[in-house]
Amino acid sequence: MRAYDLILKKRNGMELSSAEIEFMISKYTEGLVADYQMAAFCMAVYFQGMNPRETADLTLAMANSGKKYDLSGISGTIIDKHSTGGVGDTTTLIVAPLVASCGVPVAKMSGRGLGHTGGTIDKLESIPGFTCELEQNAFIDQVNAIKISIISQSEIIAPADRLLYALRDVTATVDSIPLIASSIMSKKIAAGGDGFVLDVKTGSGAFMPKREQAIRLAKTMVSIGREAGKPTVALITDMEQPLGYTIGNALEVREAIQTLAGEGAWDLTELCLRIGAEMLVLAGHSQTDAEAYQLLQEKLKSKAGLFKLRELISSQGGNPNVIDDLSILPQAQYQTFVKSERSGYIKKIDALKIGKLVMQLGAGRQKKDSTIDLSVGIELKQKAGAYIQQDQVLAVVHSNQPLSTEYADVLDCFTFSQSPPRYQPLIWQKITQEDV
Amino acid sequence: MRAYDLILKKRNGMELSSAEIEFMISKYTEGLVADYQMAAFCMAVYFQGMNPRETADLTLAMANSGKKYDLSGISGTIIDKHSTGGVGDTTTLIVAPLVASCGVPVAKMSGRGLGHTGGTIDKLESIPGFTCELEQNAFIDQVNAIKISIISQSEIIAPADRLLYALRDVTATVDSIPLIASSIMSKKIAAGGDGFVLDVKTGSGAFMPKREQAIRLAKTMVSIGREAGKPTVALITDMEQPLGYTIGNALEVREAIQTLAGEGAWDLTELCLRIGAEMLVLAGHSQTDAEAYQLLQEKLKSKAGLFKLRELISSQGGNPNVIDDLSILPQAQYQTFVKSERSGYIKKIDALKIGKLVMQLGAGRQKKDSTIDLSVGIELKQKAGAYIQQDQVLAVVHSNQPLSTEYADVLDCFTFSQSPPRYQPLIWQKITQEDV
Repeated sequence: MRAYDLILKKRNGMELSSAEIEFMISKYTEGLVADYQMAAFCMAVYFQGMNPRETADLTLAMANSGKKYDLSGISGTIIDKHSTGGVGDTTTLIVAPLVASCGVPVAKMSGRGLGHTGGTIDKLESIPGFTCELEQNAFIDQVNAIKISIISQSEIIAPADRLLYALRDVTATVDSIPLIASSIMSKKIAAGGDGFVLDVKTGSGAFMPKREQAIRLAKTMVSIGREAGKPTVALITDMEQPLGYTIGNALEVREAIQTLAGEGAWDLTELCLRIGAEMLVLAGHSQTDAEAYQLLQEKLKSKAGLFKLRELISSQGGNPNVIDDLSILPQAQYQTFVKSERSGYIKKIDALKIGKLVMQLGAGRQKKDSTIDLSVGIELKQKAGAYIQQDQVLAVVHSNQPLSTEYADVLDCFTFSQSPPRYQPLIWQKITQEDV
Repeated sequence: MRAYDLILKKRNGMELSSAEIEFMISKYTEGLVADYQMAAFCMAVYFQGMNPRETADLTLAMANSGKKYDLSGISGTIIDKHSTGGVGDTTTLIVAPLVASCGVPVAKMSGRGLGHTGGTIDKLESIPGFTCELEQNAFIDQVNAIKISIISQSEIIAPADRLLYALRDVTATVDSIPLIASSIMSKKIAAGGDGFVLDVKTGSGAFMPKREQAIRLAKTMVSIGREAGKPTVALITDMEQPLGYTIGNALEVREAIQTLAGEGAWDLTELCLRIGAEMLVLAGHSQTDAEAYQLLQEKLKSKAGLFKLRELISSQGGNPNVIDDLSILPQAQYQTFVKSERSGYIKKIDALKIGKLVMQLGAGRQKKDSTIDLSVGIELKQKAGAYIQQDQVLAVVHSNQPLSTEYADVLDCFTFSQSPPRYQPLIWQKITQEDV
């Protein structure tokens, strides 16, 4: 078998066999297929696509390229969740404790990643003392003991995906549905989950702004799950405006705590309950979405989820007092109150623009080795649909530099109208294995 | 400017500016654009194509990437010719002396190349003593003195093309019309010609088997010539059966000598006259194709072309007696006569199969550094259309090993019919700058 022939075959729109895809990925990981051949291959995939079987084979080949976590030592079914990049997305920090509080194990590996803010791991590390570096045995023991652990995704997971992603990133071959889907799913599968709930965001602040594209991505991932024998469902969720009230690292931890205390934004709370409900059903804990949703609402009301978060923090070396004293979290030096210059309904809060501003404040990584500022970010005081008076506070900017142009830039993220804006669903669609 | 953005732009089907194409090629030549980025770019070009302006810019950027020959020291207009790869194609060795014998300068750089036989340079080197390694000044002086010189194409010509070709060769991006056209034309332009006659072959033994593809390639090259201010015409010519009677290196030199003596195959002779006529018209030596054709026929009859070949051989250190004594050329040890097993009309002689057999005998290079056997090859005794009796000789195989399976393989190249085969034109079409 030669890489050349496989590039040619894909370029000409022909289907690759499982053995051919396995060859391409394993030889690439070993350094026996050159970067330039893989780059040409990825561009051919961009144009010719991959069918569900090829995409699943690609995913499994990448999942098999490194260490695969064996979580069979954990009692119960492990359902993992994944949200595609959004702005102000704190769902894991809320969903994971809520689900664990129902007695369903949550054994989660998360990333740091590039984005407007850090990833779940960065956010957790804003809690003084919290560590995400646990060995596999300690990880499994903790999940068995308290039903929850969140650790940093190992570098040895799916090395083929890491290599491939770095290559795609410099060859304009990132935005190909089969390549995106297999990248996400290969890591999830290698991390050892038994099933997956996917939160695929759509709208201005999403990785897939167009709904149609988000649905295609979701269907592709659900189909990979089916081919891999891992039950998978996806929710297509709205990311036109930032999720919840805050965008930043420590700010989002604060918001997660407030949400688990029942004081969260409507959209963030609702999304977490819906994702959590899907997890409970896939885990076999609940019979129906409605039953699971009901159970999670009770856990929210009883603050069982908040208690579980405290247990998680304690178990991983963090200061649990943060639950009662939010000032323990890193605080930015300056708080700038951004006031409305007019009155009217907030028609839109541009998630992408807000995300870019937060990145500019220092909350996100532009490169893999950038350091990030955990304390900075933007706190929305209002969400789309609200009626605002002139001079009312729209947002608070948390920064470690006095603001100059950012003030006007934040105002720019808000669009107003004189009549109430059209209702925008939070969850557009649910995709199950029957849909693909 | 970043390579990434240019890959993305081309991938998305947008037009690249002249500066952007120049950036891509010059930075790639300097090693500042990585192979993997160029590979992705070439695959994007494969799918999205390039418009005539982009293709011309790519050609010029590659022509400008190394040394450009300045032939202004030669008096007269220099018209270069190029034939795309075929089987048994000895045209240069016949056309060049014929045109030079009319007083029109022929300053030609040729290659060795990969193929069923060697290139023009390999063929010339089968003449004992002949050298193709002349310095630029000696080259120019010789053309001024005797109107003809054929030298080996310098390695420093169009280095971007050489790099790019090697990359395309391993990334399944060779067969893209803009990339092929710019590759050919960049070397021609860097070699200093004032205008070009292109012989684009079509049929089973051609680089572009399908006529439609050959026409597209020809039009693209003629359009590059126009954009570059170099008058260019192309002939679409037949390569269903091998051109002339012989396929091999020394064998083709022998055939060139015989053709210039007026004893050549009809197809090879006619093609050479037609290509030569286009050269004389482009050089401004003749007013019309018909007038030029007439003149060249006279040169053939008077053996002025043969005399010119003798002068060329003498001037470049070769043994001129080869003209009168063909046994001076390298001879293979074995001559095997392949006889027909049946009677009937020869319907077809498969050029590609013949080419592959000749390659197998050792006449061509499979890799850049393969050595080739100048003496071996196949000599056709009959061409398509001839009526053959059983046991009549169809071909003679010249080899340095006794034949085993090749005998049957040669027979396999011939297809017979009981009625005369349909006439196949030698020249399908002429494409001028008015056609593109």
